[in-house]
Amino acid sequence: MKFIAPSYKDIALAAERIAPYAHITPVLSSENLNKLLGTKIFFKCENFQKVGAFKFRGGCNSVFNISEEHLQKGVATHSSGNHAQAVALAAKLRTAKAYIVMPENAPKVKIEAVKGYGAEIIFCDSTISARESTLADVVKKTGATEIHPYDYFDVIAGQGTCAKEFLENNPELDIIMAPIGGGGLLSGTAIASKAIKPTIKVIGAEPDQADDAYQSFISGKRITDITPNTIADGLRTTVGKLTFSIIQDQVDQIVTVSEASIIEALKLIWTRLKIIIEPSCAVPVAALLEQKIDLSNKPIIGIILTGGNVDLDKLPW
Amino acid sequence: MKFIAPSYKDIALAAERIAPYAHITPVLSSENLNKLLGTKIFFKCENFQKVGAFKFRGGCNSVFNISEEHLQKGVATHSSGNHAQAVALAAKLRTAKAYIVMPENAPKVKIEAVKGYGAEIIFCDSTISARESTLADVVKKTGATEIHPYDYFDVIAGQGTCAKEFLENNPELDIIMAPIGGGGLLSGTAIASKAIKPTIKVIGAEPDQADDAYQSFISGKRITDITPNTIADGLRTTVGKLTFSIIQDQVDQIVTVSEASIIEALKLIWTRLKIIIEPSCAVPVAALLEQKIDLSNKPIIGIILTGGNVDLDKLPW
Repeated sequence: MKFIAPSYKDIALAAERIAPYAHITPVLSSENLNKLLGTKIFFKCENFQKVGAFKFRGGCNSVFNISEEHLQKGVATHSSGNHAQAVALAAKLRTAKAYIVMPENAPKVKIEAVKGYGAEIIFCDSTISARESTLADVVKKTGATEIHPYDYFDVIAGQGTCAKEFLENNPELDIIMAPIGGGGLLSGTAIASKAIKPTIKVIGAEPDQADDAYQSFISGKRITDITPNTIADGLRTTVGKLTFSIIQDQVDQIVTVSEASIIEALKLIWTRLKIIIEPSCAVPVAALLEQKIDLSNKPIIGIILTGGNVDLDKLPW
Repeated sequence: MKFIAPSYKDIALAAERIAPYAHITPVLSSENLNKLLGTKIFFKCENFQKVGAFKFRGGCNSVFNISEEHLQKGVATHSSGNHAQAVALAAKLRTAKAYIVMPENAPKVKIEAVKGYGAEIIFCDSTISARESTLADVVKKTGATEIHPYDYFDVIAGQGTCAKEFLENNPELDIIMAPIGGGGLLSGTAIASKAIKPTIKVIGAEPDQADDAYQSFISGKRITDITPNTIADGLRTTVGKLTFSIIQDQVDQIVTVSEASIIEALKLIWTRLKIIIEPSCAVPVAALLEQKIDLSNKPIIGIILTGGNVDLDKLPW
C-alpha cells in the first residue's frame, strides 16, 4: 500500500494556516553546552510553543483545515498529552467541540490543561489498542473528525513547520535532530529539511526502551510489538504507517539512548539553558552525551526541544 | 553619615561598560499568568544573564572599573553564590585573580561554577560576621580590591542597568518589582526607574522570614539583628547601609511573603513560563499571589526574575 505523504508545499501552506495562532519559537544556544558536547548546537524551543509543545502546530493545522460543515460534529483524538492539548486548544479557537481519549496514567498537568481548554475527556487504558478502540467508539457515536496524533497528513505537515522555521533562522545547520515516538515530528522535519537543504542530515533519537522505530528502521519493516518502558512519556507510542514510510525514505539515521542518559541530558538542559523541557526532548541531547553522533567534521547541529509539560511532582531525581 | 549614591548617569555609564560582556536579557509574558494573577505582567529574565543571574551586571561593572594597577593584586568578595560567580567571571574576562569567600552551605552548583571560572574559594561559616572577617583577612593578605556584593557604588550602578533595559523595552510599566536581599538590585532599580519614568512605583518584595529590609523601611532605621530562615537563599543577606539609604529615599513600598507562597510562585513560573528561576525571584510573584499589591487600577507590572541557579537535587517539592 502506498501512502500519500505531505510535500514541502503542504508544509508551507500549513505554516501560513497556523501563523495567526502559533508562536515563532526562539532558538537558544549556550557556549558552555557547546564546549561540553563537543560541537555547535542550536536548540529550537518548542517548549515555548502554545500548549507548551510542538504538537500545537499539527493540531492547529488539522483543525483549521477541516470544513465548517464537518467541524460542526467536532473533532476527536487519542493522546498521552500534548497532542490532546493541541487539538483541544485549536478546537476552542475555532469554537468547535473536542473529544479527547486519554490514558488514565497521563501526567496530571496535561489532563488539567486539556480540561482547561473545555474539551471532553474520555479516559481509557494506556495500551494503544485500548486508546484506538475507545476513540473508534467516540467517533462512531459523535460523528467527530478523528485527528490522529501522528499518522495524519495535516498533522505531519503541521509538525514540519517547525523545521522550516528552524532552517529559515539557522540555515547553517548540518544536522537536524528530533526525537521519535509516533514519528509525526520526525517525518515532517525530514520533508521540510530535505526540501530546504538537500545536504542536511536528519537524525531521529529514541529511547532504548521504546525502540520500535529504530528496529523498524534497520529491519526495513514496521515493528510494533514493543512494550515501551521509558521516562520519555511522549515517545511511548509506536511509529505510524505513514510516518514510517516517510522516515524510511528521508531520514538518515536513528539512534537510541539509555534512560540514564535521558535523565542526565534533561538535567543538563535545565541547568545550562535555564529552561524547562520534558524528558522526550532530552533524547537527542542524550545521543550526543552517548557519542552516538559522528562529530568528526564538527557539524552544526539543530535539536528540536519538543515540549515543556512536566509534572514537577514526579521528577526523576 | 551621608553616602554617595550612584546617579542615573552612573547607571548609563555602567550599561556602556558591561555591554560587550553582558546579555540583553529577554522579556517574557504569559496570557495564562496574566489571567491568573489579575493584571498584565512582564518578566525580565535575568536567569538568562551571564552566570545565570543579574549579579553579573554589578560584578562586571565593578571589575571593569578598577584601574589596571589595582587590578594586579586581584579582586575579592564574599557571596552566597551568584555575586561570587559574577566577580569570578568578570575577573577571568580581565585576566585578573579573584578571591571568593563563600559560606560552607552555599548551593553546590554555585560553588562548582565559581571554581569553573578559575577563582580561588575561601570557605567560612554562613554568618555575615564570619564572611566579613574572613574577607577582611583575605584583603589584608593579598591587597585585592574588595567588591562588596551590594553596598558598593559600582555594583549598585551595574544592577541598575537591568531596570534601564527593562524600561527601554517596556516603557508602559506602572510598577517595577524586585526582590530585596542586600538591596543592590532594588536600589539600582529605583535609581534607574525613577530617572527614566518618575511616575513609576518601585516595590521591593522580601520573605517574611528574612524581613530586615521591611522592618528597616517601616521603622526608618536600619535593622540588622534578624536571623534569616528562608528558601530564597539569595535574600538571606541584610540590607546594606548605602542601599538602605537609597531605598528609604526612592522605593515606594516593601511587601513580605510567606515561604509557602514563595514555593507556590516558584512552581507557577516553572510551569507556566517553562523557565528555571531560583526561589529568590519568585518572591515578587508570591506578593501577587498573596494580593499584597494594589491592582485596583490594573497596573502593568514588571518583575525582575533575578536568576536561575538552582540545585535541582534540592527542590522544595
